Amino acid sequence: MHLRAALPETYLAALQGLFGDRLHLGEAMRLQHGASESHFEAILPDAVVFARSTEEVVELVKLCGAHDIPLIPFGAGTSIEGNTTPVRGGVTLDLSEMDAILSINPGDLDCTVQAGVRREELNAALRHMGLFFPIDPGANATIGGMAATRASGTNAVRYGTMREAVLSLRVVTPDGRDIRTSRRARKSAAGYDLTRLMIGSEGTLGVITEITLRLQGIPEAISAAVCSFETLAGAVETVVQTIQLGVPIARVEILDDVQMRAVNRWSKLDYPELTTLFFEFHGTEGAVKEQAETVADLAAANGGGEFQWSNLPEERSKLWAARHQAYYAAVGLRKGAVGWPTDVCVPISRLAECIAETKMDLEAASIPAPILGHVGDGNFHVIFVLDPDSREEAAEAERLNRRLVERALAMDGTCTGEHGIGIGKQDWLVAELGGAVDTMRLIKQAIDPHNLFNPGKIFAS
Amino acid sequence: MHLRAALPETYLAALQGLFGDRLHLGEAMRLQHGASESHFEAILPDAVVFARSTEEVVELVKLCGAHDIPLIPFGAGTSIEGNTTPVRGGVTLDLSEMDAILSINPGDLDCTVQAGVRREELNAALRHMGLFFPIDPGANATIGGMAATRASGTNAVRYGTMREAVLSLRVVTPDGRDIRTSRRARKSAAGYDLTRLMIGSEGTLGVITEITLRLQGIPEAISAAVCSFETLAGAVETVVQTIQLGVPIARVEILDDVQMRAVNRWSKLDYPELTTLFFEFHGTEGAVKEQAETVADLAAANGGGEFQWSNLPEERSKLWAARHQAYYAAVGLRKGAVGWPTDVCVPISRLAECIAETKMDLEAASIPAPILGHVGDGNFHVIFVLDPDSREEAAEAERLNRRLVERALAMDGTCTGEHGIGIGKQDWLVAELGGAVDTMRLIKQAIDPHNLFNPGKIFAS
Repeated sequence: MHLRAALPETYLAALQGLFGDRLHLGEAMRLQHGASESHFEAILPDAVVFARSTEEVVELVKLCGAHDIPLIPFGAGTSIEGNTTPVRGGVTLDLSEMDAILSINPGDLDCTVQAGVRREELNAALRHMGLFFPIDPGANATIGGMAATRASGTNAVRYGTMREAVLSLRVVTPDGRDIRTSRRARKSAAGYDLTRLMIGSEGTLGVITEITLRLQGIPEAISAAVCSFETLAGAVETVVQTIQLGVPIARVEILDDVQMRAVNRWSKLDYPELTTLFFEFHGTEGAVKEQAETVADLAAANGGGEFQWSNLPEERSKLWAARHQAYYAAVGLRKGAVGWPTDVCVPISRLAECIAETKMDLEAASIPAPILGHVGDGNFHVIFVLDPDSREEAAEAERLNRRLVERALAMDGTCTGEHGIGIGKQDWLVAELGGAVDTMRLIKQAIDPHNLFNPGKIFAS
Repeated sequence: MHLRAALPETYLAALQGLFGDRLHLGEAMRLQHGASESHFEAILPDAVVFARSTEEVVELVKLCGAHDIPLIPFGAGTSIEGNTTPVRGGVTLDLSEMDAILSINPGDLDCTVQAGVRREELNAALRHMGLFFPIDPGANATIGGMAATRASGTNAVRYGTMREAVLSLRVVTPDGRDIRTSRRARKSAAGYDLTRLMIGSEGTLGVITEITLRLQGIPEAISAAVCSFETLAGAVETVVQTIQLGVPIARVEILDDVQMRAVNRWSKLDYPELTTLFFEFHGTEGAVKEQAETVADLAAANGGGEFQWSNLPEERSKLWAARHQAYYAAVGLRKGAVGWPTDVCVPISRLAECIAETKMDLEAASIPAPILGHVGDGNFHVIFVLDPDSREEAAEAERLNRRLVERALAMDGTCTGEHGIGIGKQDWLVAELGGAVDTMRLIKQAIDPHNLFNPGKIFAS
C-alpha cells in the first residue's frame, strides 16, 4: 500500500474549491481508483476528483503543475497493465461523469463524445440511426480510456483499432492548454499527427476530454458461426488462410480446449471441449453467405467439425455465448483466483507456430492457462489463473510470459497487441523498439517536462 | 534564386569522402532539386547527394549536425506545397537510388521497401503474387516521399491513406540514431505511435529510409463506371449518398465541366462537357455488380445521364482515360502556364455546399480553374492555370484560395487533404489547429533542437 506525505494544504484547499463534493479523500474511493482488473498490487492515489468539463480539467492541470502533484487520468479502470496505478501518488482524475454524447452526424458517419462515455451507451444511442461504433475490447470501457490505451478487441480485424476509429481529440496538455488535434474531415495532411500521438499515450502526454469517432453503418446482414477443431493447428491455419484470402471477416476469435472447458463449467454449456473458432460476418445477405461458405470450406479442409452458422439474432447470440463470458470463465477456473492476461501479437504467418510453441509451454505448466485470442490480427491472450497468495505461481507466470514475449519478439511481433505498456511491459518495450524509446522519451520530456502526467508509465524509471 | 555562402571546406571534403561522385554541386542538378511541380519559385540547395544505404544517411546526418548544415530529404520532388524547397539552403538528400524492395511477405500481406522505391515499380513487383499497394496520389511518387507527406489519392476512400498503409518505418533521427518505429505485427499498443508521427512530418523530424507497408489482395473483380450530370450538385449528391449508404466504393472522382473540356482538348476525346463522376468497384463478381447497381440508381435519381459500366480491363481503361491525364490537361489549357492545385477536404455532409460556393467564385474569376477531386473523402482540388509572369493572376489565385480555405475551415474541414503544409499552408495550419501547433513545435524542438531537418517547413518562422 502506498504511503505518501499528505497533499499540501494549499493544494487541497484549492482542489476543494474547484471540485467541492466531487473531491474524495476516503480510502474506499481511493482504493477503487488504485486497483486494476489485473494482477498488479493496488497503490492508492492521495485524492480522487470527478471532473465535469474540459475547463475544470484545465484548472486541475494548472493546479497540479503549480504544486508539483502527479495527475492520473482514469476512465473505467480496466488497466490490464497497471496503466492507471498511481505509482507516485497524486490525484486521480476520474472522467466518468463527463459522459455526454455531444453530437452525432449521421451524414458524416461520425460523432463527438466526452471522454467518460462508455461504448455500450454510445452504441445504444446510435442504434436507431442504423449506425454503430465497432471497437469492442470486451469491457464496457470509456471512449477516453480506449483512446488513451489504443484499445482494439474483437472487431479490429475488419474495422481497425482506436488508431483508425478516432478522427480528432480534444486534449488538455501538461502546460494547461486546451487543444484540438484535428478537424472533422475524413483525412488531412495538416502537420504532425497529434491525434495518433495521443492515442496509446496512456495519459502521459495529455488528458483526453473529447473524442470525435468514425462510425460504421450497421450492416444489412450479420451472421455468426462456430466450429470446433481436432487440433489447435487446424484452427489457427483456418484463420491464417481466411486472412490471406482477404475474406473481410468482421470477427474471428479462438478459444482453446482449456478455455472451452472453463466456459462450459462457468456458463453450464456443453460445447465440445476442443479448440473452437467463433466467426462473425458483416455485409449484404449475399456477401455474408459467400464469406461464410468460403470460411466453412477452409475449416473443413483443416479438420474442422460441424460449421454451425446462423443469421438470426437470437441464434447468433447463442452461438457466441461462450465467447462473451470467456475471461470471467477463465478466472473462475479456481476459486479466489486472480487473472493475468498476456497480450502478444505476431505477423499472421507466424501465428500458428507462436501459438503451438506457447501451448507446449502451457501444457507443461502447473497453472491453469487458457488461450483466447483475436487471431485475425495475430493477437492472442494466455490467461494465467493465479492463486493471489502464491509467489511460486507468480514466478512461474512471469517465466512463462517472458518466454511468450521473447517468442513473439523473435517473430517480429509486439509485446502488447492492445493492453498497452503501463507498468507491466516497460522492459519489453525497450526490448521491442530499442532506440525508438529514446525518441519517445524526448517527446515526453518536451510535452510534460515536470513528469506529472501519469508518471512512471510506459518508461522504466 | 537562392544565394548563400559556400559550404564550409571541411564539410564539403567530408561530403566528398562519403559520397564521391554521388555528390553534386552543379547548377542543373541543384535546380532540379530546388524546383517543384507547383507554382513556388525554385530555391537551390548548396549541394545534392544520393544515398545508397541507411548507414550513409546516418553519416550524413552526423556531418550536417557537426557543421550546422540544413538537410532536406527528397523523393520524387512533386512537392505541391514546396515541401522540399531548401529555403535555408543546405544539402538535399536524394533517396531515389535507395530503390530496393527488401522483402515481400504474401502470407502477411506486407512488404518492406527502401524509401526510393516508386509505387508503380512496387505494384509491378507485386502483381504476379496477386497483391497490390493501393495508395495512388497520381504521380509515380517514391514510397518514402508518400510517407513523409501522408499522401493519399484516388483509392483512399476505400483503402485509407499512408497513415493506414504503413506498418512500420526505419528512420534516421536528427541526433543520428537509426530507429525502427514498430514491429511487423498488424497492431500494437507498444508506446507512442512514432510511425504515425513521422508520417506527414515532411522530413522535419527524421529521414525515412525504409517502409513496411500493408498490402491488399487484388480483388477478384474490378469494374469501372462513368456518368455525366446536368448539374454539379447532382454529381456531388450522388457521391455523398454513396458514402452515407456505406457502399465500399474503391474510387470515386469528380471532374467538373471545365476539367472535362480540358480533357477533351488535351486527349482528343469527346466526353460530354458536363460534371462527370468516375467510379471503380472492387470485390467479388457479385459484389461489384451489386455496388454498381446501387450507385447507378443513386446517379439516376440525381439527374445523372447514361451510367457506362464495364468490368473488362481494356474498357475500364478507356472509361477512365479522361481521369488519368486530368492534371496535365488542366495545365495544358493555356500555353506555358503553371498549375497551382489547391487542396481542401471537408466533412462529406458539407461537400455539396463547399463545391457549389467554390464554383460560384470560379465562374466569376478570370483564370481558368477546373475542379478535380477525390470526392469520396470530401477532398477536392481547384487547379488554377496561371500565366507564370502575371502578378495579377497570382494575386487573384491567392484571393480565391484564401476564400476556399476559409470556407473549408468554417465547415470544420482542413486546409490540406493530402499535399501537406510545406511552405504554402503555414498560416492556414495555425488558423486550422491553433494551440495544437504549439505542441507540434515542442515536438520539433525536442527531436530537432538545431532545426536542421528541412527547416522552414510546416511552421512559419
